[in-house]
Amino acid sequence: MEARNIVALAGGVGGAKLAHGLYRALPPNTLTVIGNTADDFQLWGLHISPDLDTVMYTLAGIANPETGWGVAGDTWKMIEQLGRYGYDTWFRLGDLDVATHIARTELLRAGRTLTDVTQGLTHALGIKAALLPMCDEPVMTMVDTPAGQLQFQDYFVRRRHQDQVDATSFCGVEQATVPAQVGQAMSKADAIIFCPSNPIVSIGPILAVPRMRPLIADSRATKIAVSPLVGGKALKGPAEQMLRGLGHDVSARGVAVLYRDLIDVFVIDHADAEQQAEIEALGMRVLVTDTVMHTDDDRERLAREVLEYVKREA
Amino acid sequence: MEARNIVALAGGVGGAKLAHGLYRALPPNTLTVIGNTADDFQLWGLHISPDLDTVMYTLAGIANPETGWGVAGDTWKMIEQLGRYGYDTWFRLGDLDVATHIARTELLRAGRTLTDVTQGLTHALGIKAALLPMCDEPVMTMVDTPAGQLQFQDYFVRRRHQDQVDATSFCGVEQATVPAQVGQAMSKADAIIFCPSNPIVSIGPILAVPRMRPLIADSRATKIAVSPLVGGKALKGPAEQMLRGLGHDVSARGVAVLYRDLIDVFVIDHADAEQQAEIEALGMRVLVTDTVMHTDDDRERLAREVLEYVKREA
Repeated sequence: MEARNIVALAGGVGGAKLAHGLYRALPPNTLTVIGNTADDFQLWGLHISPDLDTVMYTLAGIANPETGWGVAGDTWKMIEQLGRYGYDTWFRLGDLDVATHIARTELLRAGRTLTDVTQGLTHALGIKAALLPMCDEPVMTMVDTPAGQLQFQDYFVRRRHQDQVDATSFCGVEQATVPAQVGQAMSKADAIIFCPSNPIVSIGPILAVPRMRPLIADSRATKIAVSPLVGGKALKGPAEQMLRGLGHDVSARGVAVLYRDLIDVFVIDHADAEQQAEIEALGMRVLVTDTVMHTDDDRERLAREVLEYVKREA
Repeated sequence: MEARNIVALAGGVGGAKLAHGLYRALPPNTLTVIGNTADDFQLWGLHISPDLDTVMYTLAGIANPETGWGVAGDTWKMIEQLGRYGYDTWFRLGDLDVATHIARTELLRAGRTLTDVTQGLTHALGIKAALLPMCDEPVMTMVDTPAGQLQFQDYFVRRRHQDQVDATSFCGVEQATVPAQVGQAMSKADAIIFCPSNPIVSIGPILAVPRMRPLIADSRATKIAVSPLVGGKALKGPAEQMLRGLGHDVSARGVAVLYRDLIDVFVIDHADAEQQAEIEALGMRVLVTDTVMHTDDDRERLAREVLEYVKREA
């Protein structure tokens, strides 16, 4: 079967890389990326959607190649001036980047949905894929640490994810609903791909939206997850501490356990090949390949391997 | 009498120049500038106060020397990105400048007054003078033109003040009140100086705030206005078309007529010396000097002449 409609679930930098690979590998307008919005927050009156923006900038080919987030060639005049006004400028908004937040905030205040706003922004940037927030309602990831309960960006950016994580929760998620466009994309998907994003705070919130899990489970699509852990390590971000803190195995297998009953195929790196049998024992097939994406070509190669696997095995 | 407490009424670029001269000439914390806020408007969800900002940047020594408004060395990343999102970017917000609007908007939304917010910003920029908005309530200058009624920035910036002006009004001004700080500054002022700003849409709205005229009239201060017209021409902006459209003389004398009964002294340029007797006939003294301010030294020299005149004649 030729995979014609592909849905990808993605968080920030790692997820955006595979989403970008899929975008390059697929015909225009066949990819739908569902983004995590539980990291969204209000800063200086602006509505910031870090994960949506990372995916958007990456697909548009304007992401900062050094950081993976933010816009290439961005400058810091605005934030420096806010610093002069006495603001605590721990969250580094670039001058190009801030335009996104100004536009989004204005449109949301005017009553547009985040789905609608995101569509306008991605369309303006020439992206021929749908980028959809997991929901239009506000959801807020909270992280319980020995220092107290922290908002996600506070934990992640301000405190540089150094705290031990005792628990996470997605405040507001019970009231969230799957946007109609997400339901439509799921219903016609040939493959649903869980990008190599943090399973706890990137894919986790997406799956926590009521009705999202049954939508995925009931879909006729092949469901494939790519492990964000390689050799027991997260390539970026706090997935290790989080898995450990929440009592999960800090391994590809530990992530596979979290996705059990949802996915058909789990993609692991050669570094983790010895876990293949254990993961298969969870009731899923395993694809072993190179999952580390250094270059744009790496992204596309991994995407093509995943898509070929769907085509061959479906 | 030594002039110890000076109040200046100022609009944008021209007024800011004399305010800056006064600031340089006076001891710290003896100058209060009352700024026009009837040009304020909402753009992309941000609260913009063009005249307050021009005065603030000028007093802080960071104004763009070429334009007179905006911040020196500013860049345009944010606005270019907004342009990519399909926004009509007729109002050129610089990257440094936008920080001011983000901060102001956030603080106003949190319930602070414009007086309070402006004090915070000017203090952060190290300005040792008080900059006070004419009122904390929203007031909006409307300009009647053959093309219809326009908001001021639409007429002034977008349409480059090319339209004939048939009338102006200050929407909301009846509900405005003089901030307590303005009343206090007026009550202890030794001199009240009308800077060379547009008499219709810069000084006009300040004087239109209920109770502002009697406050000035009843003050024991010497009241001095500097003509914004030199040789029958405005150095900048649409004062000529406005005076003409509203049926006033397009001359220093025409401006003096508007300020009659409020001021004791009118300062005109040598180019207008022949109007001295006519202006004196309006019931005011006249100081003839060089009023064109090309350099910072020009600003300070004119300010010192005005202050010396107050000291000598009061």
